[in-house]
This record gives sequence, C-alpha cells and structure tokens, in this order.
Amino acid sequence: MSAPLRLGIAGLGTVGIGVVKIVQQHAALLEARCGRAIEISAICARDRSKNRSADISIYDWEDDPVALARRGDVDVLVELMGGPDGPAKAATEAALEAGKDVVTANKAMLAEHGQELAEAAEAGGRVLRFEAAVAGGIPVVKTLTEGLAGNALTRVMGVMNGTCNYILTRMESAGLPYETVFEEADQLGFLEADPQLDVGGIDAAHKLALLASIAFGTRVDFAAVELEGIDRISIDDIRHAADMGYRIKLLGVAQMTPHGLEQRMTPCLVPATSPLGQLEGATNMAVLEGDSVGRIVLRGAGAGEGPTASAVMADVIDIARGLRLPTFGQPAALLADTRAARANSPTPWYLRMTLHDEPGALAKVATALGESEVSINRMRQYGHDDTFAPVLIVTHKTTRSAIDRAITALGHTGVVAGPPVALAIEPV
Amino acid sequence: MSAPLRLGIAGLGTVGIGVVKIVQQHAALLEARCGRAIEISAICARDRSKNRSADISIYDWEDDPVALARRGDVDVLVELMGGPDGPAKAATEAALEAGKDVVTANKAMLAEHGQELAEAAEAGGRVLRFEAAVAGGIPVVKTLTEGLAGNALTRVMGVMNGTCNYILTRMESAGLPYETVFEEADQLGFLEADPQLDVGGIDAAHKLALLASIAFGTRVDFAAVELEGIDRISIDDIRHAADMGYRIKLLGVAQMTPHGLEQRMTPCLVPATSPLGQLEGATNMAVLEGDSVGRIVLRGAGAGEGPTASAVMADVIDIARGLRLPTFGQPAALLADTRAARANSPTPWYLRMTLHDEPGALAKVATALGESEVSINRMRQYGHDDTFAPVLIVTHKTTRSAIDRAITALGHTGVVAGPPVALAIEPV
Repeated sequence: MSAPLRLGIAGLGTVGIGVVKIVQQHAALLEARCGRAIEISAICARDRSKNRSADISIYDWEDDPVALARRGDVDVLVELMGGPDGPAKAATEAALEAGKDVVTANKAMLAEHGQELAEAAEAGGRVLRFEAAVAGGIPVVKTLTEGLAGNALTRVMGVMNGTCNYILTRMESAGLPYETVFEEADQLGFLEADPQLDVGGIDAAHKLALLASIAFGTRVDFAAVELEGIDRISIDDIRHAADMGYRIKLLGVAQMTPHGLEQRMTPCLVPATSPLGQLEGATNMAVLEGDSVGRIVLRGAGAGEGPTASAVMADVIDIARGLRLPTFGQPAALLADTRAARANSPTPWYLRMTLHDEPGALAKVATALGESEVSINRMRQYGHDDTFAPVLIVTHKTTRSAIDRAITALGHTGVVAGPPVALAIEPV
Repeated sequence: MSAPLRLGIAGLGTVGIGVVKIVQQHAALLEARCGRAIEISAICARDRSKNRSADISIYDWEDDPVALARRGDVDVLVELMGGPDGPAKAATEAALEAGKDVVTANKAMLAEHGQELAEAAEAGGRVLRFEAAVAGGIPVVKTLTEGLAGNALTRVMGVMNGTCNYILTRMESAGLPYETVFEEADQLGFLEADPQLDVGGIDAAHKLALLASIAFGTRVDFAAVELEGIDRISIDDIRHAADMGYRIKLLGVAQMTPHGLEQRMTPCLVPATSPLGQLEGATNMAVLEGDSVGRIVLRGAGAGEGPTASAVMADVIDIARGLRLPTFGQPAALLADTRAARANSPTPWYLRMTLHDEPGALAKVATALGESEVSINRMRQYGHDDTFAPVLIVTHKTTRSAIDRAITALGHTGVVAGPPVALAIEPV
C-alpha cells in the first residue's frame, strides 16, 4: 500500500464541498480503487465562518490559496475558486512551481491560459487536469483523450450550458417568452453573476475551446470561437422550429476543415428526434465523431455539487493511481497553432423576419435572397393583426457567407423590419 | 521518445483488420498521442490466404496463436479470436506467462474465466484489458472504472446486443412478426453462428456480468445472470407497449441490493420518451448511475470493424502511454465474492395472455391475480374473430415472486391459453 495522496482544496463552494463529502464518505471505496488512501490536508476559502453542509473543522485552514498550494503536506492542489486570473491562476502557478499536481474545474482559466499552464506543468513533470471544467459529471475529457484516442476526430458537438438549455426547453414546454423564463432562471439561482456568461454563450464557448484542443491536437483558441447567445430567440422561433420537426439548442460545434479549425457556439436547429433534439432541461450532451468509432453520444448532468465533484474526483483518482497524461492529451509544446476558419460549411438555414405589410413585399424578399444565391426551400407567411407580417423561410443548403450577403440585401429592400433571426440547421 | 510498442494480433476477422488499418493509417497520430510508435510485429489467423481489406503481407505470420503470444518481439497480445476457451484462452495464458500485456475483445472468455485470468495478469505485473468486449465503440469500461471512480455505483443498465435491438425496432417500424425479422437479420449477417448467443441474450449477459464486476467490485458471476431472450416477443406486444407509451428492449440491469447482487438480461418495457426507449436499430446504450454523478448515458455503435477496433486501440494506447490498471478496476484478489440476489425489486409488470372466450373468463383472471396479491392498474381486452381473446394487463408495482405466483394461479383457472408473456416495466 502506497502513501496516502494528500489534497489541498482551494474554494469551498458547491463543488468544493461536494469533493469533501466524497473524500469523507467513500474513504474505503477510494482506497480499494486506488491502492492508497486519499486525504485532505488543508483547505482554503474566502469565508471561514460560512455555514457548510460538511464538517471542515478537521482540516487545516489557510487564508491564502498560494500558501495552500505550497504546503509541504499537499500533493495535489484542487483549484475550485474559478475566474480566469487572480487567486486561481496564482495558486495554480504556485502549486506547479512547488512540484505539485493540479486538478481544476476552471474553464475560464484554461480557455485563457491553458497553453501556458500546461507547458509549466509539463516542464516540471507535473499534471494539470480539468475533467470537471467541461460538461460537469460527463467524463468527456477522458473519453476524447483516452477512450477515442485511436480515432482521428472529425467533429465534436455539445450542449454544454445547462442554464441555456433549461431556458430554451422551458420556453417551449410552458409557452413562455424568453424574458419571463430568464427571470425564472435568475430566481432559481441558475444564472452566473454575469448572466452573459450563460445566455451569451461564453461559458459554453470556454468548454468548446477546450474540447477542440484535445480533439484536434491544437492550442486552445477561445478567441476564435464564433459566439452568439440565445437572447434573440423568441417563443415564435421555438414554435416554428417545432412545426418543422426541429428544436433550438445552443450548440457548440468544432470541426477541422481544409481551411482551418472551425469553432462556433450558436443557437442552431437540430432534428427533434435526434439525441440532441431530445435533450431536456439542464442536462448536458456531448457528441463525438471519430473516423473509426462513428458517433458517440454522452449525456448527463452538466453542473451541481455531486456531478461536478464526481469529475474532480476522477482526476484525483487518476493521479492517485499513477495514471498521468499531458493536460491536452499530448505534450503542450507539440500542440499545433492552427489557423481559425470561419464556419462556412453549407447547411440549410432558418430565417425569421418581419415584413411591412405592403404589396410586393414578399417578392422583394424573394428577389433579395435569389440575388444573394440563397435558394428558398420552404416559406410561410403567418396570419397577423397589424401592419407587420411574420415571415419564415427555410433555405436549401447554403454558406454562412451567402446568408450574410442575403441579410444585407434584405436590409436594402426597405420592407424588412430589423435584422432577421438567422439560425443554421445543423445536420446531426 | 520511448521504444515502439509492438503488437501481436491473433485473429484477423472484422475487428482484427480494423485494428491493422488504424495502426497503418494513424501511425503519426498514435505516435504524437503516445510519445512512442505503435507497431505490429506478427499476426496469426486461421486462414493465411483469405482475401483481406488491408495489406498484412508486411507482418510476420504465425500459424499458432500460442507461438505468437510468446514471441520476443511482441509486447502486447491482441486477442481477437473469440470463444471462451480453446486457442483464445491458451494464447492469453501464454502471453501473461511470458510477461506480455493482453488486450482482448473476448466477452465469453472473460465472463467465464475473468477472475482467473486477471489474477494471473496481476501476479505477473501485467495488464489484461477488455474495453472492446462490452458495447463495441462505447468506452463504457473506462467510464465506469475511471471516469466515475469517485462514485458508489448504484445501478448499471444497458442495451448491449445490437442484433436484438435491430430485430425489436424493425418489428415495430415495419410491422413484421418476429420470425420474419429474424430471417432478415440472418440474411444480413447480423446473427452469430449460434443465434441463441444473440436472441437468447447470452452475448449481452456476458457483457452485463463484466460491467457488474467493475461497477460493484465483485467477482464476475455470469452464471447468476437471470436470462430471458426476445423470441417470445410478438408484434402484438410491441404494439400494445407502444399504445401505452413504452417500447420493448432487451435490457440488462445490474444493481446491488441488501440481498446481494441482482443481474438480469430480460426484455423489459421502458418509456418511449427515455433515452433507452428512443434507441433505434443496432445502436448500443449504457446507463450508469452513481451516487454523486446521477445518471450518465452513453450511446454508440456496439459492433462493427471501426467501432470495435477503436475500443481495442483505446486499450493498446493506454498501455503505450503507461496507463496501467487492474482488469476489473481494483486488484482481482480483492474482488468480493458477493451473493447473487434474485431480481425482486417491485416494478409494474406487463402481462399478455390469451383467454378462452367464455362467460366469466375475465373474472377468473382478475380473481387469480388478486389472490396472488397482484393489483391491476390497467386491463384491456382486444376485439377478436375467433374463440380466443387477447387480454393485456398492466399491474401496479409488484415483485417478481408475486408475478410468478400469479402466473401459476392463471394456469389453474382453465381459461388462459398457454403461459402469459410477463415483462417488467423498468423505471428508467
């Protein structure tokens, strides 16, 4: 039996307390699985006196996460403070410098500084692991890095922000407008302090950038993720999509193209009968496509105390068992600095616009689309009471560039009120 | 850069050729991911002259798999011959004795001899891995053993025989009887030489026994799996189930109960809207429930050249990277010899029977059920042309023991033609 693996936990929010509970409640199980005990040496959080649902009085307390990271009785820093910089980054760097391994759930820090931190870890022979940073309890990092390592990955997709999926499915099931459900989600505590992290797609884009790196062996390039939030999706869009057999999801897609790496996190239409289309509520899903394996779909809770702590512990247990891998599956120094490609693969598009109700308006729209080389598959004009007519168009397969040209041309017709809502219909 | 990892491949059927293709086509990718090359030293199969879709002339040929296993230039035996005993077991034992690691896709061998082989591997400091033996391309062994290692697993379920799921979903979509679809599947080459391995549930039960062992830390106990095939499922059962919002699946369930380990592979009704209910065709699915993570669902191809070879390569790559784990996640010598429990958790049951159309027949059925303490939730008698009336009953939650008593009592009524079809409605 080897010596115990000793953790220092920085951050005692929901996830931190979840980790403490697993270590306390499953001591025997963990020791059987790892061949050694897993112990907590010391902890650190902003507020020592806060009432917590686990007994933390038995652990040494540190006020400073950097001091925690450097303690002689800490083998692994478990970084659960969050934030791209500040104490999280300082503690992570201090731990790596002091020759400790690091397990983190911090997607923002890795999306912004993953390359530099992974290089620092590998230079010192340490590991930096982040299963909990992506899709909560779903072991998607392990699946991509190890389970599918015999594949050239071709495409990675994911619904990875539970709050957005909750809002979109709740709008549909309750027939409520975006603003109402947004308020509900806020009152339920589902939203980040800055809600743009959720509904603007930033949080999900952090996760996508990390998955793209491990799938394609490229340096994390969060800045290149094409980003669009869900705040322009109306209940009408959801109903129209449902009429046509689709559901709207905030979908991340990363794929390697001849032009470079395409990464986007945008609302898309997916078939209602597909696994992505059937995803309800705050659940997350990752769809991984490889040249040998075909399509693997993983589904589970994307957040919450238990699921996220489960993912943190998977990394801790790997370290306890001596299973050590580079942060992004291959050495950070070898990751390719790949060109970012604008997403432009031809797909059908969904367009919703409001027309001034005047003779010839629809003809002007059709002409503008035709001159942009966007071909109409289906068009519907809905009944209306006022001088504005809602019009819905599904195009044949066309590129994003053509859609952009069409949107400009529609603006020049003088009959379209405001910019159309344009959503790709993703072939899944 | 370390020395190459050298494989000896025994068995060049579909999966073996898939492995050869990945090694040949992804040499650079594998070297980048492993930090060392993966090479094939020698191969072995029954028929050297058979026409194969990969160039195998560049590898040394062995006629005897045991000789292959013992070669000095083989680090890992990749055993893809199949069969619980015979050459597969002999070669596996020879490789372990000679100090080589073994990767196998052989569910029958591990279900029958897993304990003994794992102990042999661990005694010699070798690994014996079997990702490809369960659910094809889905990395379910890795997910259970590593990704969810921080959880006490509570229940593991799976649809893990693609042929059975193909038959059941094809019966429903085409409205065809079992016998017709069975013939179709045979002509498509979907059936094993002994079809009972598929439709009798044996192949899927092998897989379930392996998953139960790694989930619950118990010795593989294939003999204890309660087994029932799909050959009594009629198109009427499928239609009745659909009417009530269910679909019929050959579902494996393993759970630890106060009475011991429950393992069953039986046709069950599952909600049509659940991920299991929505599973079409030959696709496989594993549902893993842990105390922290909640429910994780994995979906993908359960068989075929690419998917199964992908799983074999995941094990090979783990070995190349130095990621070494005991066969069942913890040392074989520590696995518990757990009592087998008969599946008896209360669930609703579906009963279909044929009544002699005579006055009072339905009353006799209801009485027999009531006296067995089986309470009826819904009952339907369908229209009919002859003297036999099809009757369908859904019970309230009741135990398997009570259902067995009820079936005996129904036999004594004199109005039921043949034994009823009885299927549990699984809460998923």
